[in-house]
Amino acid sequence: MYKKIFFALLVLFTSIAIQAQENLGFGQRREIVSPEIHADNSVTFRLLAPNADSVSVTGDFLPPKGWAQGSEKMTKDADGVWSFTTQPLPSELYTYAFNVNGLQMNDPNNVYYRRDVASTLNVLLIGGGQADVYKVNSVSHGTVAKRWYESPGNEMERRITIYTPPGYENSNTSYPVLYLLHGMGGDEEAWATLGRATQIIDNLIAEGKAKPMIIVMPNGNVAQEAAPGESNLGFYKPQFQLPHTMDGKYEETFIDIINFIDKNYRTIKNKSGRAIAGLSMGGYHSFHISRYYANTFDYIGLFSAAIMPNENVKSKVYENIDATLLKQKLNGYKLYWIGIGKEDFLYKANVEYRDKLDKMNFKYVYRESEGGHTWRNWRIYLSEFLPMIFK
Amino acid sequence: MYKKIFFALLVLFTSIAIQAQENLGFGQRREIVSPEIHADNSVTFRLLAPNADSVSVTGDFLPPKGWAQGSEKMTKDADGVWSFTTQPLPSELYTYAFNVNGLQMNDPNNVYYRRDVASTLNVLLIGGGQADVYKVNSVSHGTVAKRWYESPGNEMERRITIYTPPGYENSNTSYPVLYLLHGMGGDEEAWATLGRATQIIDNLIAEGKAKPMIIVMPNGNVAQEAAPGESNLGFYKPQFQLPHTMDGKYEETFIDIINFIDKNYRTIKNKSGRAIAGLSMGGYHSFHISRYYANTFDYIGLFSAAIMPNENVKSKVYENIDATLLKQKLNGYKLYWIGIGKEDFLYKANVEYRDKLDKMNFKYVYRESEGGHTWRNWRIYLSEFLPMIFK
Repeated sequence: MYKKIFFALLVLFTSIAIQAQENLGFGQRREIVSPEIHADNSVTFRLLAPNADSVSVTGDFLPPKGWAQGSEKMTKDADGVWSFTTQPLPSELYTYAFNVNGLQMNDPNNVYYRRDVASTLNVLLIGGGQADVYKVNSVSHGTVAKRWYESPGNEMERRITIYTPPGYENSNTSYPVLYLLHGMGGDEEAWATLGRATQIIDNLIAEGKAKPMIIVMPNGNVAQEAAPGESNLGFYKPQFQLPHTMDGKYEETFIDIINFIDKNYRTIKNKSGRAIAGLSMGGYHSFHISRYYANTFDYIGLFSAAIMPNENVKSKVYENIDATLLKQKLNGYKLYWIGIGKEDFLYKANVEYRDKLDKMNFKYVYRESEGGHTWRNWRIYLSEFLPMIFK
Repeated sequence: MYKKIFFALLVLFTSIAIQAQENLGFGQRREIVSPEIHADNSVTFRLLAPNADSVSVTGDFLPPKGWAQGSEKMTKDADGVWSFTTQPLPSELYTYAFNVNGLQMNDPNNVYYRRDVASTLNVLLIGGGQADVYKVNSVSHGTVAKRWYESPGNEMERRITIYTPPGYENSNTSYPVLYLLHGMGGDEEAWATLGRATQIIDNLIAEGKAKPMIIVMPNGNVAQEAAPGESNLGFYKPQFQLPHTMDGKYEETFIDIINFIDKNYRTIKNKSGRAIAGLSMGGYHSFHISRYYANTFDYIGLFSAAIMPNENVKSKVYENIDATLLKQKLNGYKLYWIGIGKEDFLYKANVEYRDKLDKMNFKYVYRESEGGHTWRNWRIYLSEFLPMIFK
């Protein structure tokens, strides 16, 4: 009987799995492997689509074509399996999708996805270089918690992602805290999923390159309690832009987050134990929060920061920018780090901001990278920023 | 300049989002809403696929056709948008996919997915009934943590999902613990994603129907450190069956999990504060663990349990089953709950198991439901089981 039931279980689940995955006819159960990463780091993508007239693969491993993602045509074999093999690829975390007769679709043989605003794309990791720090490696792992904190300033409970380092739960040590902020369209999930922040910090701590630290990843959209699908709004289509993301409200109520963290975690409760960094809109937030809360952060990171004049927005947060920057300079800080890609549409805004800082003799470390406004750059910046803080 | 940069940001992200989502040509930017839930709980599915010859929708809201999922043909409008509208649907969490010219694909306008083994399907929630307890509602939310615990018995660190109830972090109370086990093909993610366990417990606590408790969701595949994609094995295709899932090793090393939880959390450290429940293979594990660890659990839940004789498997865990069951009876317990669907392929095995218990005068509560071996049933069983424990 054991064997009989077990066989029934296997048949049941295998049939469900195959039906859901590949829609194969009887006798056609060729196992499709996609993506297949070869020894030389070239990658073969495959899709079983015998009825399709044209199939291509698009992804950020291909050079972009103007505003559009690059794509390559796939070719069909006798079994109806379309495939394309890349050149050997540099180590990176890539996203991709297929296009079948003009319709974009995910790879049914790859269960790994990342959502970016309202797009969900498959992911693929090539090791052997930069992306090794994005992998889960055989190292001690911190704890990643999704919690809700009370925000009196926003009159709501809000969801937050908190990383505590290995050993946190079994020590009496107080740890420094990095507040890590997402960009427009992001939320409290973005740095952990698209940014691989928890893998990066696990790996850098294990290698002795970064200090054990707490990383706090809040939701920067104060109109939102939580990421799409994680609040009482249910499953709705995420939007790129939300109200009150760049009008001072988030910066003004950021103290709720600091108070929550300092109350609930064993933290170093002064500027020497606090860093703040963010990408794009999160860089804008980091710029404003770090000067608005005088003497609160010793380490500031602006990743492709959306530095922009905001004369049209009325908020006490945006008053006296020059005076508060001067105060920030006089109070002292240990690192003010600015990173941007040469092709970023915010490049010029960052040149102008650095000019302003230069004129004030406000010291910063400047990192200019290749590429533009991409998660690829933000992961690189984070990997470089973490070893520089709390030293 | 503010407006200019902001406009550039919007154009950039809108173009990326649209390109990644819908592959629309210029002038065709009709916003596709899918799924659209109407006031009467009927649902319209839509897919822009002007070049397709036939499109259908398949999902568990349709009656199955034998072993296969039910499906319905969609119809095309003048803009190339295919659609299908269901009858009003009962309140439930459903999964679905599209089939375009014979090729299964996800809904590009729905970013909400659930992975089950190697299949990734879109989800859809209809409220107004049973599924209200699966929603995120405006209630206090517990914390969901992904941690790693040391398992000396398996000589590895292993990943585990832990729910702590609202208020846990700001009290000195000791809480009871439910150990909640997944089935074959599952892992430490399954109950939280497919099972909506954290939403269910949040809602039942808020309604005063369940006691505040800790819920521990371990990984029952002892050959695995963590769910696919979360270990150093990287991104690989998940398999339904893994070694050492039903050979006694998990049950034998389960003490590592209890020890970890009792050491690291404020728990009630005796049987009155411990429950164990699981689905399918997890029901099998709960059956064995609850008698193997004498006097450890006051509450036991077997959900569609894979109760099977195991004469062919050599493990001290499976020795003396009758004697240990008798001991469990004599030691006493407060609830032994057995739930199964009328159409479950394990129905007969559960009849035989209940016969055995009846002959021993071993008391249990029996719940027979409609349907079979499905997450729909396991969510229902959990919603019913939670209010019965720790009372």
